[in-house]
Amino acid sequence: MKAIILSICPEASLVDITHNVEKFDVRMGAFVLASASAYFEKGAIHVAVVDPGVGTKRRPILVETESAYFLGPDNGVLLLAALKEGVLHAYNLSNRDLMLPKISKTFHGRDIFAPAAAYLACGRDPYEFGPQIQDWITPSFTRPSVRVNKVFGEILHVDDFGNVITNVSEEQLVEAGIQALQKLQVEVKGKTYLFKRLHAYGDAEKNEPLTLLGSHDFMEISVNQGRASDLFTAKAGDAVVFSNPH
Amino acid sequence: MKAIILSICPEASLVDITHNVEKFDVRMGAFVLASASAYFEKGAIHVAVVDPGVGTKRRPILVETESAYFLGPDNGVLLLAALKEGVLHAYNLSNRDLMLPKISKTFHGRDIFAPAAAYLACGRDPYEFGPQIQDWITPSFTRPSVRVNKVFGEILHVDDFGNVITNVSEEQLVEAGIQALQKLQVEVKGKTYLFKRLHAYGDAEKNEPLTLLGSHDFMEISVNQGRASDLFTAKAGDAVVFSNPH
Amino acid sequence: MKAIILSICPEASLVDITHNVEKFDVRMGAFVLASASAYFEKGAIHVAVVDPGVGTKRRPILVETESAYFLGPDNGVLLLAALKEGVLHAYNLSNRDLMLPKISKTFHGRDIFAPAAAYLACGRDPYEFGPQIQDWITPSFTRPSVRVNKVFGEILHVDDFGNVITNVSEEQLVEAGIQALQKLQVEVKGKTYLFKRLHAYGDAEKNEPLTLLGSHDFMEISVNQGRASDLFTAKAGDAVVFSNPH
Repeated sequence: MKAIILSICPEASLVDITHNVEKFDVRMGAFVLASASAYFEKGAIHVAVVDPGVGTKRRPILVETESAYFLGPDNGVLLLAALKEGVLHAYNLSNRDLMLPKISKTFHGRDIFAPAAAYLACGRDPYEFGPQIQDWITPSFTRPSVRVNKVFGEILHVDDFGNVITNVSEEQLVEAGIQALQKLQVEVKGKTYLFKRLHAYGDAEKNEPLTLLGSHDFMEISVNQGRASDLFTAKAGDAVVFSNPH
Repeated sequence: MKAIILSICPEASLVDITHNVEKFDVRMGAFVLASASAYFEKGAIHVAVVDPGVGTKRRPILVETESAYFLGPDNGVLLLAALKEGVLHAYNLSNRDLMLPKISKTFHGRDIFAPAAAYLACGRDPYEFGPQIQDWITPSFTRPSVRVNKVFGEILHVDDFGNVITNVSEEQLVEAGIQALQKLQVEVKGKTYLFKRLHAYGDAEKNEPLTLLGSHDFMEISVNQGRASDLFTAKAGDAVVFSNPH
Repeated sequence: MKAIILSICPEASLVDITHNVEKFDVRMGAFVLASASAYFEKGAIHVAVVDPGVGTKRRPILVETESAYFLGPDNGVLLLAALKEGVLHAYNLSNRDLMLPKISKTFHGRDIFAPAAAYLACGRDPYEFGPQIQDWITPSFTRPSVRVNKVFGEILHVDDFGNVITNVSEEQLVEAGIQALQKLQVEVKGKTYLFKRLHAYGDAEKNEPLTLLGSHDFMEISVNQGRASDLFTAKAGDAVVFSNPH
């Protein structure tokens, strides 16, 4: 992919965000992209290829936001990041002149997304890549549901430390009227917990569970020096509900 | 290695192809290099250091092809890629002025290959690095044997999905007169199989074995949503014979 | 971190030394940095974030040596490399204008060290980052103790091959009057061994233990084609004493 990009646009500056997303884990890819994308300069071009549907009918897309461009499969991997930044337009990549001459069935990162990123970096306009679309896929993990005193979200990722990272932002808690109290009520797998709401792992007692806003800007459930994932055998995709304690 | 390259030739543009080749696995290194090298611009300089013989008498070499340069140990790791592109000349790296002043016994990547790549990138000519050689090593995995209606190859690599990647190209099948039929006969470990010849994993039934040309341009044996390597406990180095079905 | 650096200083040239340091393993981080830093150009800026104390009172520091700059937490991770090159000054990073506006409790790599590296790369002077300090932390692993005929060191790292890498340099053996004899006496975990002193693994018999100066410039205990770590179930932090044989 990098060889293709540099062949088409030698002045492109390449940054690897990660190569450690689990195979086929669209949620984890979306989470990592959303944690990192806001820190790039305006106009950055992000390519994210977690692509279990490669070779099927799923569309390759380009999403333009107020501050960046996102290229990847239309399976939601781009949308968690793109929705945070405000989607302006989306396009279905279909202009064969801006792809490699031969398109394999299994490696669209190389054959479609890398060339598109390079042409875009070197001055092509988004509308040249294909027709605008409105019906891109936004899986449930890209849009927590905000109600009065409740935010319905889900688990995005359990990290190597056992921290349980949700798709819920601090803004969504505020929008739901959930105040910056000392405790938060959290429902996972039908069970309700009351967790301290703190700023750092170390502000809790050893082995005490807590909630905090992670450095990735998502609400996280953790245990100081322990593994929160052991509290409720939680896994990516499980529902989580935040609310004020009664 | 990168520090050395940038010290000698600051304008060099560096691309990591992979750091995930298994220790000492020359075949896997050769396979990864051969899958990627054709996508770089003409004149690219490739360094591949899978080097179980470091510190012994094995020669460090530079191979010049029609479109690229290859630097690494003379153990075959460069040759699968270089032979695809057409070898023009090969040189034994021996000019001490184009190496680091101190050569360790264990890290020729840093002490010999990185400086050579940098000097080459910044304008030195291949013949300055040492005498031409003709007797570079071409292990069996770099040259499948093409007969009438048979291509004798071997397994290069079993990937994380259990796909069995061979060293046989589509051109070699054509050369052997093996037609683009719907089925291919494949012999592995003394047993003969009849596999569908398809374009994508998804074109087979679930759990059905198939052969296809992978995105790396080598013939591959796969099982749709399963592990082809379980069919015959195949491993890198095992012989594979492709032929027309009777 | 890279996004931040390139936003602040687009002309910076970025090199990844490694992303494979074990979580919280300050010794291993220090070892890898010390193996690599000397090969960079004069004026290189090194960022090393192995940071178990992030969010606590541990200071973020900048260490200036005769040939390079080192940025990271004040826990010793920078010092093994910096002491080799000769420390000139150290500063406590405290100028908030040279950090991100919002400092998280858990990711100072992004919020403090990356911006500092970028500002330094683009021309800021070290004294602008904060007050000079003299009391930076130098853990025992950064300073082996040299006596008459004895060097008291410790194990820095056991590598993937089972090689036991110590923090002792060849200069320290010379300083202690330990001659370049054919054998070295090595004490590990209260037991004394007599090992051949060789230049390469392959100079020993198969399965024979040896000592050599590794390509990283630290004394190493190895077994030719075997695992030295199995000789004495050694682990990072264990004491090692080198001396002349009686």
